[in-house]
Amino acid sequence: MRVMGVDPGLTRCGIALVESGSGRSVTALDVDVVRTPTDMELAQRLLSVYTAASHWLDIHQPDVVAIERVFAQNQVSTAMGTAQAGGVIALAASQRDVPVRFHTPSEVKAAVTGSGRADKAQVTAMVTRILGMQTKPRPADAADALALAICHCWRGPMIERMAQAQQRAEQMARVHRKRVAAARAVTLPSGRKGTGS
Amino acid sequence: MRVMGVDPGLTRCGIALVESGSGRSVTALDVDVVRTPTDMELAQRLLSVYTAASHWLDIHQPDVVAIERVFAQNQVSTAMGTAQAGGVIALAASQRDVPVRFHTPSEVKAAVTGSGRADKAQVTAMVTRILGMQTKPRPADAADALALAICHCWRGPMIERMAQAQQRAEQMARVHRKRVAAARAVTLPSGRKGTGS
Repeated sequence: MRVMGVDPGLTRCGIALVESGSGRSVTALDVDVVRTPTDMELAQRLLSVYTAASHWLDIHQPDVVAIERVFAQNQVSTAMGTAQAGGVIALAASQRDVPVRFHTPSEVKAAVTGSGRADKAQVTAMVTRILGMQTKPRPADAADALALAICHCWRGPMIERMAQAQQRAEQMARVHRKRVAAARAVTLPSGRKGTGS
Repeated sequence: MRVMGVDPGLTRCGIALVESGSGRSVTALDVDVVRTPTDMELAQRLLSVYTAASHWLDIHQPDVVAIERVFAQNQVSTAMGTAQAGGVIALAASQRDVPVRFHTPSEVKAAVTGSGRADKAQVTAMVTRILGMQTKPRPADAADALALAICHCWRGPMIERMAQAQQRAEQMARVHRKRVAAARAVTLPSGRKGTGS
């Protein structure tokens, strides 16, 4: 599975491509940081981020895009721009029918370091070790994008299986409700209630 | 000037087209509310909003898009989605070289009702009166989009003139600084310092 990890941002937006192998093996294929100048108009900055992300999607054709979920509580002044940068990247993926998944910063830290409260240095150190890189990825946004992708490689399949199990359970519940309703509707005193149980 | 006003949102996104005439005369040309289901995936919802906004831009070809500026403080739970909806619309405008401007809710209320603290009912009542509409625009998102467009029709030209004046002042300051530097560099005791003052 090829995962495109995104640490969204307007000033610096980290984008990484990681491929998962058997077990927990992961390989970094590419990483980059998209930058837009702070004195550029918001709409233009969003267009730059969108264009760069679209290019990445077309070149690398990932199976899924994993984006960091932004919360309004953290750094209110930049949270909106960060959310919007993530939004236009989600849009670019959606336009190409690539599924988009979100992970919280704590989920990413927990997946990579074992602790949801790890600091940036710990995340970078673990990312470097997990991917077997010779040098630490820089800046932090690049490391975060790699961490996001690794997190999805490890958590993603489990999340998908759980979602599928839930979907199957809901479908079975629907079928069951239908049968019960049908059985009730049958006022005939016969024992014929279909072939199922 | 044709202004496309946007009250961004994922569940309901108000979009309006208002044309300004001479003085403060404004005419509503179109208004609509784009809705996306709450159980749809975020990326899909953003794609729906983006597609609807792109269609509007292509059909109506506005001169400018005015979007409500979202603050993280208001309704934290929906602020991120609202910001992202505004972001993908700004992107759609940017892709068509249509300038995007932002106005705060207070600026919009002040422009339309005279008070930055007006409530929704007052805004709707004033929008109805200003545009000479037979019935009140519904839902509130439609009225808000119209208010945004009216606000830009009235405030926009002034804002542009101020921005231009500031740009000219900065340019003049640059020229002046250059001349001063050039004058200082000239160590010759001659009075020749160019033709300007």
